[in-house]
Amino acid sequence: MAFTFPFSAIVAQDEMKLALLISAIDQSIGGVLVFGDRGTGKSTTVRALAALLPPMEAVEKCPYGCAPDQPAGLCPSCQHLGEGETPKSHKVPVPVVDMPLGVTEDRVVGALDLERALTQGEKAFEPGLLARAHRGFLYIDEVNLLEDHLVDLLLDVAASGENVVEREGLSVRHPAKFVLIGSGNPEEGELRPQLLDRFGLSVEISTPEDLKTRVEVVRRRDEFEKDPEAFIARWQEHDAALRDKILAGRDLLPDVVVPDAALERAAQLCLSLGTDGLRGELTLIRAARALAAFDGDREVSDAHLKRVAPPALRHRLRRNPLDDAGSNVRVGRAIEELFGA
Amino acid sequence: MAFTFPFSAIVAQDEMKLALLISAIDQSIGGVLVFGDRGTGKSTTVRALAALLPPMEAVEKCPYGCAPDQPAGLCPSCQHLGEGETPKSHKVPVPVVDMPLGVTEDRVVGALDLERALTQGEKAFEPGLLARAHRGFLYIDEVNLLEDHLVDLLLDVAASGENVVEREGLSVRHPAKFVLIGSGNPEEGELRPQLLDRFGLSVEISTPEDLKTRVEVVRRRDEFEKDPEAFIARWQEHDAALRDKILAGRDLLPDVVVPDAALERAAQLCLSLGTDGLRGELTLIRAARALAAFDGDREVSDAHLKRVAPPALRHRLRRNPLDDAGSNVRVGRAIEELFGA
Amino acid sequence: MAFTFPFSAIVAQDEMKLALLISAIDQSIGGVLVFGDRGTGKSTTVRALAALLPPMEAVEKCPYGCAPDQPAGLCPSCQHLGEGETPKSHKVPVPVVDMPLGVTEDRVVGALDLERALTQGEKAFEPGLLARAHRGFLYIDEVNLLEDHLVDLLLDVAASGENVVEREGLSVRHPAKFVLIGSGNPEEGELRPQLLDRFGLSVEISTPEDLKTRVEVVRRRDEFEKDPEAFIARWQEHDAALRDKILAGRDLLPDVVVPDAALERAAQLCLSLGTDGLRGELTLIRAARALAAFDGDREVSDAHLKRVAPPALRHRLRRNPLDDAGSNVRVGRAIEELFGA
Amino acid sequence: MAFTFPFSAIVAQDEMKLALLISAIDQSIGGVLVFGDRGTGKSTTVRALAALLPPMEAVEKCPYGCAPDQPAGLCPSCQHLGEGETPKSHKVPVPVVDMPLGVTEDRVVGALDLERALTQGEKAFEPGLLARAHRGFLYIDEVNLLEDHLVDLLLDVAASGENVVEREGLSVRHPAKFVLIGSGNPEEGELRPQLLDRFGLSVEISTPEDLKTRVEVVRRRDEFEKDPEAFIARWQEHDAALRDKILAGRDLLPDVVVPDAALERAAQLCLSLGTDGLRGELTLIRAARALAAFDGDREVSDAHLKRVAPPALRHRLRRNPLDDAGSNVRVGRAIEELFGA
Amino acid sequence: MAFTFPFSAIVAQDEMKLALLISAIDQSIGGVLVFGDRGTGKSTTVRALAALLPPMEAVEKCPYGCAPDQPAGLCPSCQHLGEGETPKSHKVPVPVVDMPLGVTEDRVVGALDLERALTQGEKAFEPGLLARAHRGFLYIDEVNLLEDHLVDLLLDVAASGENVVEREGLSVRHPAKFVLIGSGNPEEGELRPQLLDRFGLSVEISTPEDLKTRVEVVRRRDEFEKDPEAFIARWQEHDAALRDKILAGRDLLPDVVVPDAALERAAQLCLSLGTDGLRGELTLIRAARALAAFDGDREVSDAHLKRVAPPALRHRLRRNPLDDAGSNVRVGRAIEELFGA
Amino acid sequence: MAFTFPFSAIVAQDEMKLALLISAIDQSIGGVLVFGDRGTGKSTTVRALAALLPPMEAVEKCPYGCAPDQPAGLCPSCQHLGEGETPKSHKVPVPVVDMPLGVTEDRVVGALDLERALTQGEKAFEPGLLARAHRGFLYIDEVNLLEDHLVDLLLDVAASGENVVEREGLSVRHPAKFVLIGSGNPEEGELRPQLLDRFGLSVEISTPEDLKTRVEVVRRRDEFEKDPEAFIARWQEHDAALRDKILAGRDLLPDVVVPDAALERAAQLCLSLGTDGLRGELTLIRAARALAAFDGDREVSDAHLKRVAPPALRHRLRRNPLDDAGSNVRVGRAIEELFGA
Repeated sequence: MAFTFPFSAIVAQDEMKLALLISAIDQSIGGVLVFGDRGTGKSTTVRALAALLPPMEAVEKCPYGCAPDQPAGLCPSCQHLGEGETPKSHKVPVPVVDMPLGVTEDRVVGALDLERALTQGEKAFEPGLLARAHRGFLYIDEVNLLEDHLVDLLLDVAASGENVVEREGLSVRHPAKFVLIGSGNPEEGELRPQLLDRFGLSVEISTPEDLKTRVEVVRRRDEFEKDPEAFIARWQEHDAALRDKILAGRDLLPDVVVPDAALERAAQLCLSLGTDGLRGELTLIRAARALAAFDGDREVSDAHLKRVAPPALRHRLRRNPLDDAGSNVRVGRAIEELFGA
Repeated sequence: MAFTFPFSAIVAQDEMKLALLISAIDQSIGGVLVFGDRGTGKSTTVRALAALLPPMEAVEKCPYGCAPDQPAGLCPSCQHLGEGETPKSHKVPVPVVDMPLGVTEDRVVGALDLERALTQGEKAFEPGLLARAHRGFLYIDEVNLLEDHLVDLLLDVAASGENVVEREGLSVRHPAKFVLIGSGNPEEGELRPQLLDRFGLSVEISTPEDLKTRVEVVRRRDEFEKDPEAFIARWQEHDAALRDKILAGRDLLPDVVVPDAALERAAQLCLSLGTDGLRGELTLIRAARALAAFDGDREVSDAHLKRVAPPALRHRLRRNPLDDAGSNVRVGRAIEELFGA
Repeated sequence: MAFTFPFSAIVAQDEMKLALLISAIDQSIGGVLVFGDRGTGKSTTVRALAALLPPMEAVEKCPYGCAPDQPAGLCPSCQHLGEGETPKSHKVPVPVVDMPLGVTEDRVVGALDLERALTQGEKAFEPGLLARAHRGFLYIDEVNLLEDHLVDLLLDVAASGENVVEREGLSVRHPAKFVLIGSGNPEEGELRPQLLDRFGLSVEISTPEDLKTRVEVVRRRDEFEKDPEAFIARWQEHDAALRDKILAGRDLLPDVVVPDAALERAAQLCLSLGTDGLRGELTLIRAARALAAFDGDREVSDAHLKRVAPPALRHRLRRNPLDDAGSNVRVGRAIEELFGA
Repeated sequence: MAFTFPFSAIVAQDEMKLALLISAIDQSIGGVLVFGDRGTGKSTTVRALAALLPPMEAVEKCPYGCAPDQPAGLCPSCQHLGEGETPKSHKVPVPVVDMPLGVTEDRVVGALDLERALTQGEKAFEPGLLARAHRGFLYIDEVNLLEDHLVDLLLDVAASGENVVEREGLSVRHPAKFVLIGSGNPEEGELRPQLLDRFGLSVEISTPEDLKTRVEVVRRRDEFEKDPEAFIARWQEHDAALRDKILAGRDLLPDVVVPDAALERAAQLCLSLGTDGLRGELTLIRAARALAAFDGDREVSDAHLKRVAPPALRHRLRRNPLDDAGSNVRVGRAIEELFGA
Repeated sequence: MAFTFPFSAIVAQDEMKLALLISAIDQSIGGVLVFGDRGTGKSTTVRALAALLPPMEAVEKCPYGCAPDQPAGLCPSCQHLGEGETPKSHKVPVPVVDMPLGVTEDRVVGALDLERALTQGEKAFEPGLLARAHRGFLYIDEVNLLEDHLVDLLLDVAASGENVVEREGLSVRHPAKFVLIGSGNPEEGELRPQLLDRFGLSVEISTPEDLKTRVEVVRRRDEFEKDPEAFIARWQEHDAALRDKILAGRDLLPDVVVPDAALERAAQLCLSLGTDGLRGELTLIRAARALAAFDGDREVSDAHLKRVAPPALRHRLRRNPLDDAGSNVRVGRAIEELFGA
Repeated sequence: MAFTFPFSAIVAQDEMKLALLISAIDQSIGGVLVFGDRGTGKSTTVRALAALLPPMEAVEKCPYGCAPDQPAGLCPSCQHLGEGETPKSHKVPVPVVDMPLGVTEDRVVGALDLERALTQGEKAFEPGLLARAHRGFLYIDEVNLLEDHLVDLLLDVAASGENVVEREGLSVRHPAKFVLIGSGNPEEGELRPQLLDRFGLSVEISTPEDLKTRVEVVRRRDEFEKDPEAFIARWQEHDAALRDKILAGRDLLPDVVVPDAALERAAQLCLSLGTDGLRGELTLIRAARALAAFDGDREVSDAHLKRVAPPALRHRLRRNPLDDAGSNVRVGRAIEELFGA
């Protein structure tokens, strides 16, 4: 119904755009956490990316939007399909699910279908937002204001790609693979380190400080609002080019090689930064591989690692009492030491 | 049933009246926050403005009061209309919805229709106050006493013009475009900066300090209460003139030009005040354009910007530890520096 | 069933009695707040006033006790009456509704009629205490122990004369005009200034300090308890005289003139006391006019203003850090300065 | 079922016994508050008094145990009786109702009869403990641990003799005249002064400090537990004598005269102690009159006043910062000054 | 189903074993409170005692396990028995009821039988754990972690032998005589003195500090776990001897004489320790009598008093600011002074 | 559906692997508590162990997965089996039950079967996660974030092997023998000492600090994710060898002898460390015996004790204010003193 601002018309905010693009190529990178000022177009950017992606093929009437050609991991609704049976399918847009404020947990994970319980006396599962986000994006504005247990739950589901429901006498599991995008303002309260660590990438965005960019943002916004259709038409070509690059990257991804040197570089970087556990290097490798695929490269190189190291590691540092440099500085320094300036 | 005090008979409180008038011309400005003493007629003013506006054409029996001539964005109830089918409509007054104290969230956003669930065993949506406020005003007295999550929710809906409901197994979205007006007393507790920033305009009102004005307020009030019909008749003409000016402004609005110079001025002002994000300049531009339209001008000029800058920016300043001047003074100073005194 | 102590037999407590009497003449004065020691007969006095008033004519079976001769503002139950149709009515005593401790909000504002919902599957409104108090008195003992939101709600309804219910899928409004009387002990916790300001009048009562009065109170009480019927008979004549004076005052009220000088005096008094907003002078004018009517005077004079100024203004003063005199002293001083001693 | 320890076999604790006895003669004295150590037989004493009183005549099947010969104030269940119709009645023991720990408010005041609501779909009132206590005793152990609002509610009902229920769509009032007896340990938390003041009498009991009394208590208790029937038989005569004295006192009560001198003495005593309000002297007069009746005297004398003044006034003193003597000492001193030693 | 460790095979912990044994002889002693380290076999000991006792005769199908030969005090289910009618009965093991963690109050006291309410629309009582514990033991591990009001409720029922239920429209009372055994770790939080005082006996247990005992405990435990049946057989004889001693003690109990000297000694001991109320001496006498019966003595002697004084009094001492000796030392000293070392 | 990482391919983390292996041999050791950094593969290891174990024989349709050849301790569903009747059974994988975040207590312990209650009006028990974990593993990630009462409940069930449900009118007990594995990060909050003590073993794991290990972890993970089937095949042989060792250990376990010297060593070690209660030595003995069985030894030796002493005792030490060495150091020191270095 509403028009979506074109992804390619978004001014500045390059790191956020990069993080979203590589997440669109490899969903297993683990979500993006966006920190920064309000009013800088975070939500607009997410919505724009989803609109950029081509519609996907989904099983008809399947509440989880299963892909018809994927034999494994089908949902409770598609499991009844006979061996070799091909379900009817149609094209649907890639879902972007917003977590509205005041959402109740039953709507997130799904719950007992009240209507069927009342009218037919049977216990049926009514899928929630996690089901609707399957194969797309789940966007949480002000993720730091959400209750910890809900964030934890979302991260769990995003990590496993599966929603396990144990409530109200229901015991259901269904696929829920999505890119989790959380935005927040650090001034409003921080996420627990444990939660931070479970996001794949983190990006920081801020209000542009130069007049030209600011005027450009306001002008484009104003143009879009006055005549959205004309504006979208004007940027159509740029968006198409970007879409092709994403699709090519997805195709290339399984063939991108991670040489031993890259594995070692990643481990050295994490060791020197002292990140807990091994999520740092796992994410770094995955993100570098996705970036290589996006760039059309068949092997992960230092250049790829350097570019994705800040968003992949920045939020995994422990506070170091002897080094009061910010995370950005510390990651930058470690990269420089390892790769040279 | 009750009589409404005429808008033009309201004594003083010019900034509040201006903010309401330009919001009536361009709803997308984003609501008005009114801070000030109790007993200064805030609620009276809002009600007066709504009564001033001409009745609007609405689809019959539509619980959202849809406009019959607007092909896009129709509500769940009107969507069933065939292409080119014109729904029956009638004139209804512009709604002013009060948030009564102790309102429950289900009544704000809408909820499961209990009666139909119980008697017919079906899950139907019963629209709430947000639906009723569509195309009108939503007034919250003592907005600072409302729970943050409800204020956030209202601001979300006001910004998107759409109410997304995910609760009790319901999943509904319907149009909800309204001017949100919140009033509060800063002594009773402040709004979080994040919420402040999401209001389009803010105005401050106070008890008049000169005897003549006070006596005039009491005298008019007394006259109105003694014989409301006669009083209203006496001010009818003034109200009609104002109504015509609003309607003319609405017609003119799409044609008002925002020259590049104005865009730059707005950005410069916000940069010099250090407002976060870009909501400041977006609102400033919109408010100045609405003011131009109200004044019958076809181009936004410095004069318009100067007049709306205080209500558009005052509530977006960060507390500056090196400058303990109040927001009013700082905005005034910045205007003076930029535009000259 | 129980006998009511005669109003005219109440010993001392003149300010409270005056406040109640003028509220009985003009309900729009806005309720009375009674502060003082326990065991000083506050509840007895309210009940006595209601018993003093003549029974009122009310529509039969109407749960709101509508007046049959008032064409406007009829309740949901009486709205179905045809034009010019006169409903059946009967005499009923003026209601005094007590807010029992532990009352639940649904009983105050009204709620879904559970019985009809369960047996007939329909959503009907069951009126609450606000409906029952219509045209009478609503008495809250220990108003400072009530939750703020309930007090606020009661003040809202008392001010608007209308109860707006938005809960449990119900959306009802019905007339609820009553004099709100709250009593409290300041030692048990204070009301928020915002709530204080919304009561029309405030009175302070205390335990009599002279032996004669105390003995007289106990003696009358004892006589009443031993043989209530005889006691009531003995005071019948005094009560009748007072009742006539109230009825005459109500008739006279619309004809009482408020000269410009009185308006100015009221404004000057409030200015010099620095009361917030304009509720101070509005109440002062109304109370003085009601007093004039009670006294049989056709014009408001300084004498009337002086007498009602303390109860009308005492609770609206801001705490003044440079003047630690109590409110009583400050109001007294301001009156003296303005009117002379 | 269980045997009750005979009232006359209770060792020591004279003040508590006196307070209970005069409350049994005049219920309107307003309840007894018992403060003191645990394990001193408070509950035993209350139960013993109730067993001492002769069975009362009650309407059959009436859930409130109405007295058949009392034409006024009948309950909802007896109101249907025709004029002059005499209901069937039978003898029942005087009720002693214990407030069990964890009692829910619905069981105290009564509530919707769930069974009838579910099976017959009608809203009927199911009387609670207040109904059952009508005409008897309501005993609350550890009254200071009960929530304030429940204590307040109980005091309200005890004072008015009527239970007003406004909940769950019910609106019922029924007679509930009972002697409220609260016990508590001051070390476990104090009652609010407001609640203290609403109890008629207060007594303090403590563990006996002399060996002989202690041994006697344990011996009697042991005898009673070994063979309750024999023990009760042994004390039957003493109990009968006391019962006769109570019944004679009740008969005499309406004829006991309170001379003006006694009224003045009472007021003087309260004035000199500075008790708030007039509940002090009202209770003092009632208690003295009941004591006179118990003693068989036809006029209240100084001796009666002196004896009941401590339990009637002790709990109504304000804390006096200039006089750190305990309440007992201050009351004693005031009595001595007024009446002579 | 599971095997129970034999009581006589329990190593050390003599005071706890003694307290349990005399409670098994006289239930009215009032429960046992066990304080000490975790992992010292408290729960094992309680279960062992119950298994030691001979099965009891109980009315068939009676949910309260009533004794068929006890004419008084029968439960709601047995009350319908005609006079002289002997109900069918069978042997059942003495119940040991564990309070599982997270138990809800409705399961403790009993509640509305949901099934019958839903299917047959009638309000029936479903007995709870208190009913099941009748005539046996109720064991609460970590009693100090239970909510105070639940502990209070359990102590009330244990003291009165009757469970009074007033909830959900139910009004039931049934016999519930049991030995309440609470265990706790004082490091995890203390019981309120008021609750402490209501337990009959208190014992302290600790981890054995000598190697031999520890090895013996582990060895026996290991043997038991490897082949429980053989282990139980090996200790059968010891258990049988103990069982006979308990049964003989129960028979002898009513004939044990408490000479006046013993009563006085008990009172002197309590006076010198300054215990509140008279529960101290009442319990001391009962415990000494039960010990005499257990020992086969027909008269309570100093030796009996001395042995049970520590568990009977230790938990009733007030903290004495001038004497920082522990309770054990103070009780010991007082015993020594009174009885000689 | 999903593939499980092979147990033998897990790099490093030897103590955790050992603890899990001996728990798989003797379930009565009492669960494992794993403390350490996130992202170190705790959950992977648990899942891998379960997949390593051979499928178990379970009664068909039994919700508790009862073993068909175990005559005692059958569940409510299998109890109806006649004597000597052999139920139908099939092979099922060893269950690993995850406690999903936000699980509700009713799903943990089981609850009223809502569907059957609503449709058939009968109270049936619906087994919960405890039932599903029977004979397998129950894994709680972030056990320190779970509410204490739930942890306590789980430990109770794990200790007794039985789930006792007393809620919603249900009274059920069923077997629930499982190895409880809790993981947590000590930085996020500690468990109460009481809860710590109830876990059998505790292990500490950390991020590997050497580059080679880290690279190896990431490489194997990457290989596994790229082609899980091939990866699993490659490790199949190692896993089979380990499985055989576990099965042999289980067979040998009942025959492993614990010589008196070992019992004494265990007791000496606990005495010297000052552990509370006797859980320390009981666990130490059990763990050493299981290790002996795993190693194929028929007698417990010092070597076995030394190896399992750290995980068996480390979490049972009291904080020693005079010795600020960590638990690891203190246990190490005590072992060295006792057994020699």
